[in-house]
Amino acid sequence: MIIECIPNVSEGRRADVVATMADAVRRVSGVRLLDHSSDASHNRSVFTFAGDAGGVEQAVLALFEVAIEAVDLRTHKGEHPRLGAVDVVPFVPIEGVTMAECVELAKKTGAAIAERFKVPVFLYEEASTNPARKNLEDIRRGEFEGLAAKMASPGWAPDFGPAAPHRTAGAVVVGARMPLVAYNINLATDRLDVAKKIAAAIRQSSGGYRFVKAMGIRLEDRGIVQVSMNLTNFEKTPIFRVFETVKREAARYGVSILESEVVGLVPAAALVGAAEFYLQLESFKQEQVLENRLRNG
Amino acid sequence: MIIECIPNVSEGRRADVVATMADAVRRVSGVRLLDHSSDASHNRSVFTFAGDAGGVEQAVLALFEVAIEAVDLRTHKGEHPRLGAVDVVPFVPIEGVTMAECVELAKKTGAAIAERFKVPVFLYEEASTNPARKNLEDIRRGEFEGLAAKMASPGWAPDFGPAAPHRTAGAVVVGARMPLVAYNINLATDRLDVAKKIAAAIRQSSGGYRFVKAMGIRLEDRGIVQVSMNLTNFEKTPIFRVFETVKREAARYGVSILESEVVGLVPAAALVGAAEFYLQLESFKQEQVLENRLRNG
Repeated sequence: MIIECIPNVSEGRRADVVATMADAVRRVSGVRLLDHSSDASHNRSVFTFAGDAGGVEQAVLALFEVAIEAVDLRTHKGEHPRLGAVDVVPFVPIEGVTMAECVELAKKTGAAIAERFKVPVFLYEEASTNPARKNLEDIRRGEFEGLAAKMASPGWAPDFGPAAPHRTAGAVVVGARMPLVAYNINLATDRLDVAKKIAAAIRQSSGGYRFVKAMGIRLEDRGIVQVSMNLTNFEKTPIFRVFETVKREAARYGVSILESEVVGLVPAAALVGAAEFYLQLESFKQEQVLENRLRNG
Repeated sequence: MIIECIPNVSEGRRADVVATMADAVRRVSGVRLLDHSSDASHNRSVFTFAGDAGGVEQAVLALFEVAIEAVDLRTHKGEHPRLGAVDVVPFVPIEGVTMAECVELAKKTGAAIAERFKVPVFLYEEASTNPARKNLEDIRRGEFEGLAAKMASPGWAPDFGPAAPHRTAGAVVVGARMPLVAYNINLATDRLDVAKKIAAAIRQSSGGYRFVKAMGIRLEDRGIVQVSMNLTNFEKTPIFRVFETVKREAARYGVSILESEVVGLVPAAALVGAAEFYLQLESFKQEQVLENRLRNG
């Protein structure tokens, strides 16, 4: 079983504090810290680790223990919106685990956080218990500074923990979601209008695919434009379908695709799915991937 | 480091003996038995396991120990050519290991087999020390029954071990090779001549791609034909190039591809390579595959 967890913490300037957080995760057995990065202007760090359910829960609690000592939101400043010392904790199913199991894990971890650190917990995305509290942006609106008033208003009792914010650590948003694939397609043109029109054609918000967020941007140094995307559910809106649609839309303007790129990590299944599509592998099973068999015995 | 090893053993009828062999492999720590299958008419079993260099070597020796007790080639009968109780032992680099390291492992394991079991060892494929003894078929020609005479002739001293066959266990062929991908493309036609012409166009033996073996066959029950292939080096002759060539050749006869299939296991890299090609992922790195990062830290 592989679950990925990507906690976002409200500290991106003090390298020693971030290193202590990373070490706390690394010390948990059965968990592998895959990546961590800090942004000073956001004053925020993102940790990526993976393991089984018990391991990632322990790693979140270990990270929390450092953060609640080191971060005081009353004095924290940064460009990125936040409402907690540990701001958001998504669990993501990667292999041998269902979304339902990740939802259960989010609830179990949320309850443990509330019990141990007396921090209120809001469940979001697939773990949400309330349609008005499914999107992270809706929960975070008003940020730490507006949290006490928000929690006093109807419909904003937390899912776990005290009814008012923690004095220094605010609240935390915990949930489960599909892996997010950051995927960009570079066009062989400098026409920004073409990239913007294609982005509008494929993103959900303007009538496109349900699990695509997209915008057209200019890559100044290369003199080309890019359709920059987040694919929020590669099983239901697969990479290859997005690629083929962008290619077809670009052709309308006489523009071709220069290249595409995955930013950061991508689950193997997302790329194997593309191979299945193009090679017409109609009866292929994930267990035929040698590495999957190695892990699952 | 992941090395795959696929020993072929000359016993495919006595289920208890095969089970004892499988158990011997399973008991080696750090090694996972992925598959084993027996063919009664061939009187032969194929074991597939994987692990690090030390683990797979120990598993080969453990398998040998059972085979040399249980198999007597003087009374063994079966349709498949063979010269040893353990007939052939290929080591295959899967991840985090080079072909050169697998060649070294083949030599180390071959020396250990000769030392411990007094069985002559011939090195083949990438581990071969002699161009006339690179192909398995050339080494095996004459089989167990002709082995004593063959080994007495010039050029057939073994790479390790005694100069004459083991009385009951014959000899063993040990080496290193790339993963073999069994890949078939089904055509939307019942015209066997089309499948045969395409097979001839793409296979090395008649002028096609260097690492393709292919033949055209009829799938009687489905009323269609198939280009049935072994891809012996998917890095140098990739699946997507073979697929596209077959598609283009088929179009010449007005025939389209119905579907393709991978038989058995395939390394993820072979399919990720196809995704890179079709999605024009020009700067993609294997470390971006989440599962690879998990294994390699």
